[in-house]
Amino acid sequence: MSVVKVLSAEQIESIFTIPMAIQAVERAYLEKHSGQSGTWPMVFHEFDPGHADLDIKSGHLGGADIYGLKVVSWFGANPEKGLPALFGTSLLFDLSTGVPKALLNAGPITHCRTGAAAAIGAKYLARPDATTLLIAGCGGLAPYLVAAAITALPGLDRVLLTDPKFPENGKKLCPSITEKVGELLKAGGVSRTVDILPTELEAGVKQADIIFTATPAYEPYIKAEWVRPGTHLSCIGADLSGKEEVDFELFRAAKVFGDDEGQCLSVGECEIPHKKGILSGLLGEIGGVMAGVVPGRTAQEDITIFDSTGIALQDLVSAASILDAADQAGVGVQVDL
Amino acid sequence: MSVVKVLSAEQIESIFTIPMAIQAVERAYLEKHSGQSGTWPMVFHEFDPGHADLDIKSGHLGGADIYGLKVVSWFGANPEKGLPALFGTSLLFDLSTGVPKALLNAGPITHCRTGAAAAIGAKYLARPDATTLLIAGCGGLAPYLVAAAITALPGLDRVLLTDPKFPENGKKLCPSITEKVGELLKAGGVSRTVDILPTELEAGVKQADIIFTATPAYEPYIKAEWVRPGTHLSCIGADLSGKEEVDFELFRAAKVFGDDEGQCLSVGECEIPHKKGILSGLLGEIGGVMAGVVPGRTAQEDITIFDSTGIALQDLVSAASILDAADQAGVGVQVDL
Repeated sequence: MSVVKVLSAEQIESIFTIPMAIQAVERAYLEKHSGQSGTWPMVFHEFDPGHADLDIKSGHLGGADIYGLKVVSWFGANPEKGLPALFGTSLLFDLSTGVPKALLNAGPITHCRTGAAAAIGAKYLARPDATTLLIAGCGGLAPYLVAAAITALPGLDRVLLTDPKFPENGKKLCPSITEKVGELLKAGGVSRTVDILPTELEAGVKQADIIFTATPAYEPYIKAEWVRPGTHLSCIGADLSGKEEVDFELFRAAKVFGDDEGQCLSVGECEIPHKKGILSGLLGEIGGVMAGVVPGRTAQEDITIFDSTGIALQDLVSAASILDAADQAGVGVQVDL
Repeated sequence: MSVVKVLSAEQIESIFTIPMAIQAVERAYLEKHSGQSGTWPMVFHEFDPGHADLDIKSGHLGGADIYGLKVVSWFGANPEKGLPALFGTSLLFDLSTGVPKALLNAGPITHCRTGAAAAIGAKYLARPDATTLLIAGCGGLAPYLVAAAITALPGLDRVLLTDPKFPENGKKLCPSITEKVGELLKAGGVSRTVDILPTELEAGVKQADIIFTATPAYEPYIKAEWVRPGTHLSCIGADLSGKEEVDFELFRAAKVFGDDEGQCLSVGECEIPHKKGILSGLLGEIGGVMAGVVPGRTAQEDITIFDSTGIALQDLVSAASILDAADQAGVGVQVDL
């Protein structure tokens, strides 16, 4: 018999902050680069194509002595039944003995670590003098993207918000997103705030130094000719084959990086440019840029792209740091298994 | 937020009986045959080849409205640390909404469902007049194999026990195995008992109508010339590439069935005969035999082999029936997730 700790969504939200997520995801990228840790083949299943699917991402983390998996299930018709469409569930084990350690509601982890990923892309690849960030997409992820950017990018002084598919959402949702950003920053002990303003898509792209794309689009909406030299893009939305947010023409001139080359070229924002023969591969993975092994931006006018498809190690390092914090705070329920 | 039920090893042992396991595994084989249910690609990782590994088996079960996965971790050095070498952990979800339902200690499930698999192979493929069963292997699985055979095979009147690698174990462990078999039968409400006697390997094979092989051998120990016409073999031990218990020569004349053709030919007892070109494929899967679509044994003198590699559906149907029984009995701990 063993004893596992169960951490609910509420408990994780009370513990896991944006600065913790940034630290965890930076560590995940570096661990991937160092080869100490690794991910195992992803399981993907469509129960009903376009309506319900699932993936299981798993891997091991040398540094934190943990291995585990995350099941993400998406059931598109759930909201009609009063249920969330997305469930994330993580199971963790001790890497030196195989003993089951914890069951976590991974929902709040996913939002924080995805926001952190976009911000880390900008931290290492955007121009040091970048001041204006455009967020394309007003979904549940938007406040996490903004809060992570404000935390990771001290030079940022303006956030523009736009919804490519439902333009009225930018103005409509700005107050609630601003409020949530305030809560996230406060929970993370970040005192700095930045104005968040709704904008039209084209005008926003033309003003932005940094763009985060975070919609489930299958048609690109960021036109190459709108993007100014020197812009950085962190692309978050494309995580399944066929998804696309950015005009493939932009990839001809851009310097392109990602979290995992295989995933980026097969299911990420890089997929279509790669299939069209415009992009042969990444210049490198973000962990290599962070470690100083891969050159990132080398000129003010470079357009840089960070393709963030999401890797199991982000969830694993985040879960490990949540477990540590929960143990210290005495949070969670211990159950015999 | 959702609520999951956590069921410990002890709680599952108090609920899950051999007759329940036989019913569950029969249903799993039939569901696989009907195509209503399915398994997804297995994840396998060796932390340290020969010393520590893990697999993740997953799938969905149309009939029981459940999907899920089982993580089996093996850390060979654990017993030196006072820990079990093997951990099995199952996570279950609702198939119509994706809501997480339960976390189970799958250890006791694995023993029961594996014993049931061997017995079901014999139930559908052994001669109706078979009376003598040989169990090759005196490990933790042995009592479950015996109890399942006694439950599923009313004509059985003698069980012989042998340990191919440590011959003294047959005699030494016979009393404790007999005692455990008694407990398992009592828990399952089976009143019939059968004598269990230690035997030498060769003598045992030469007397047996049915043989269950259940060792982790990488060298065959059942010689083809010892096996009498009319014998049935359920092969349990081989579940990884290279494992082998039965002389490949026996496959030339035998009628060979399995639980999953792909797994049998790649990692099961069929692997070596298949690689040697002796066996091109299975005559059929056991679910097809049970459904009456695939002919099984057609003559008294047929030698039949059932290669049981273990499929995710066995664990899923077992877990679903345990969950139902636990709900009825009010067993388990409900935890917010």
